[in-house]
Amino acid sequence: MEAGLETIEAQARACRDAAQAVAALDTAGKRALLEAMATALLRHEAGILAANAKDMEAAAARGTRGAMLDRLRLDDVRLKGIADAVRFVAGLPDPVGQVTREDIRPNGIHVRRVRVPLGVIAMIYEARPNVTADAAALCLYAGNAVILRGGSEAIHSNTAMAAALHEALRDAGIPTAALSVVTDLSREAMVRLLQLNEVIDLAIPRGGEGLIRFVTEHARVPVIKHYKGVCHLYVDEHADLDLALDLLIDGKTSRPGVCNALETLLVHRAVANEFLPRAAVALRGRGVELRGDAASRDRVSDLLSASDDDYAAEFLDLILAVRVVDDLEQAIAHIRRFTSDHTEVIATRDVATAQRFVSALRSAVVMVNASSRFSDGGELGLGAEIGISTTRLHAYGPMGAEALTIERFVVEGKGQVRHAESRQAI
Amino acid sequence: MEAGLETIEAQARACRDAAQAVAALDTAGKRALLEAMATALLRHEAGILAANAKDMEAAAARGTRGAMLDRLRLDDVRLKGIADAVRFVAGLPDPVGQVTREDIRPNGIHVRRVRVPLGVIAMIYEARPNVTADAAALCLYAGNAVILRGGSEAIHSNTAMAAALHEALRDAGIPTAALSVVTDLSREAMVRLLQLNEVIDLAIPRGGEGLIRFVTEHARVPVIKHYKGVCHLYVDEHADLDLALDLLIDGKTSRPGVCNALETLLVHRAVANEFLPRAAVALRGRGVELRGDAASRDRVSDLLSASDDDYAAEFLDLILAVRVVDDLEQAIAHIRRFTSDHTEVIATRDVATAQRFVSALRSAVVMVNASSRFSDGGELGLGAEIGISTTRLHAYGPMGAEALTIERFVVEGKGQVRHAESRQAI
Repeated sequence: MEAGLETIEAQARACRDAAQAVAALDTAGKRALLEAMATALLRHEAGILAANAKDMEAAAARGTRGAMLDRLRLDDVRLKGIADAVRFVAGLPDPVGQVTREDIRPNGIHVRRVRVPLGVIAMIYEARPNVTADAAALCLYAGNAVILRGGSEAIHSNTAMAAALHEALRDAGIPTAALSVVTDLSREAMVRLLQLNEVIDLAIPRGGEGLIRFVTEHARVPVIKHYKGVCHLYVDEHADLDLALDLLIDGKTSRPGVCNALETLLVHRAVANEFLPRAAVALRGRGVELRGDAASRDRVSDLLSASDDDYAAEFLDLILAVRVVDDLEQAIAHIRRFTSDHTEVIATRDVATAQRFVSALRSAVVMVNASSRFSDGGELGLGAEIGISTTRLHAYGPMGAEALTIERFVVEGKGQVRHAESRQAI
Repeated sequence: MEAGLETIEAQARACRDAAQAVAALDTAGKRALLEAMATALLRHEAGILAANAKDMEAAAARGTRGAMLDRLRLDDVRLKGIADAVRFVAGLPDPVGQVTREDIRPNGIHVRRVRVPLGVIAMIYEARPNVTADAAALCLYAGNAVILRGGSEAIHSNTAMAAALHEALRDAGIPTAALSVVTDLSREAMVRLLQLNEVIDLAIPRGGEGLIRFVTEHARVPVIKHYKGVCHLYVDEHADLDLALDLLIDGKTSRPGVCNALETLLVHRAVANEFLPRAAVALRGRGVELRGDAASRDRVSDLLSASDDDYAAEFLDLILAVRVVDDLEQAIAHIRRFTSDHTEVIATRDVATAQRFVSALRSAVVMVNASSRFSDGGELGLGAEIGISTTRLHAYGPMGAEALTIERFVVEGKGQVRHAESRQAI
């Protein structure tokens, strides 16, 4: 599956041609396909796990350790989880064909807005082999063909999974090009792929900031991305402080390595004396390092000093930046300055304060008295998630199957024309 | 208003800062602002028309003639039309704040999808000074700030209109940077503008294919565009031929220079003997030149020969490409090959045929028994139109005020956390 410049272009064009076959499937056909994909993954468990073992060995030999190595790892339980996720997508409402608006115009033409697939989606991702199946399921279910470009560290795992998924496609009479897995792409070929704007309708990079900047820099096709999640919790003077502490602990410690984890705590001066020492005890008991401004350091002993870099950082680790603010407006100003447009949370019992917080901030997700960790497609009711967008276009926030479709216009008439004189003059 | 590299960047940042003031306006505030903008345009009629006269003189001196010159021209009637269009936008439903979906999740969190403005929109357009007011009205009404980069040929007209519009902004307490008119931008400065992806949320180029390719090539910000409209009419064997002729004449002749005009006629072989000679008489009587394949030439005398280039062409003129097809599938295959994804029309009385045509084609607008000339924001019920997208992302087809907003998530809870153990352990 090595891809030179012509190869990648030919693969992309084959994928685009195959997109028609996917788009032509009805809901039942797509559900059957996804069920068959899940079954095929389990049927090929031995081969997939053996392939994964090769990737793990190579990664270990390269010195990969800890969380990075764990992300790459598959076992029978994880593979079952991957197959279940594919089946779960098959049970979601089909976004394709949904009529979102309907209108009969004064001249009698009947205008409907109807969801259609985007076409061809290029997913560019790193490490986690589960993305191969997840993205395949969501893209295909939304009626799209997909080009999956996984990282070289997962080359054997991705190739083995793709081979299994292709069996299901073949059985359904869909060209396997509808799910094109390119595992070993030179930098040059990747750039070429990202510039095929007559072929690819959307690129979704998922991975580190370097990957995302590379894709953004070189793409001539539309890109939906998020760089990072610098999520804030603002504890207002009107907050229920027990509730605020719940949100803080869940947000920072339940899974610190993900993008919807909290990175910064802002506390209203009026409650800082009471809240900050409690927060420090609870967080430090869970291994969290705190970095604060002078006002925080006055209230909590042995606090490290926070710089602007800390306030801008996505730590993805057990580190929290802390700041005491004079009021709601100062909290809003801080968030506006440092936000990555991902998720912000306010803890308050005051309705007007909550409203001001929500309307003043335009991040993709704004939570009132709920954990930032709910900023996730599954938790917000999208079913499954292909990614999160912090680009304020097409989709903003968690993206489900619907975000892989677009509304177009279908119009029915009885011969209406725009300029009546045309008709009369015949 | 000459803009060097630092100037354009400073202007763009000022525009972004001003966006907050626009986003903070409620519906009544935005309506009052647009009313004041319309009034200001009329109050400054003398100055605007004098400025336009300068542009007209310069254009004539450069040898501009005909439709191009006419596009540039303003008079009292046109200016009144421009002011009326601004007032019309003020009467549309406000898309900002609309709740598009609402869900209470099993854990009790209340999830709403709410429309917010995109932020900062850069409109890059040529010639027509009316776009200055139209785009300003639509962008501001959708809660956005806007950078308008008109062509140098309309520099005096655009500057004079902007000065009038700025009076209305000032009276409303909105920084005039919310409507930044940059009229004299070097190629380098334009490229810089298009790369400010931390500042600009969307670029919309409107103009010739050259302009659009330039913007696409250089932009690092998202671009919504349409290159051209190669709109097809397929006259099916089951068509009402009188109705089909209505659609053909309206589509080709009512305004041949616009993107929703017909460029290609496909006729089913079974009705070609009857339809084509009638069509030829009707169209030639209206000055249309026909270019056809061999089968068409067999049925109509003195028909020029059509090449693939003709089938791919957006003539924007009284020229029509014609082809006889064996059946619906051949018509679909032809359209798939040559479509620009803009608008396709079928004339048929057969429901199954219409359904197949609609589902097989994924152009932004598909019409059954209605004129391609309805492919327009106003005609399709969007109120007003900022442009048409043939990019299958964010918006597809005519774009109204809603396409200048995005749905985000607003979540309200009562302290729900994702990992209950966080709460218990406090």
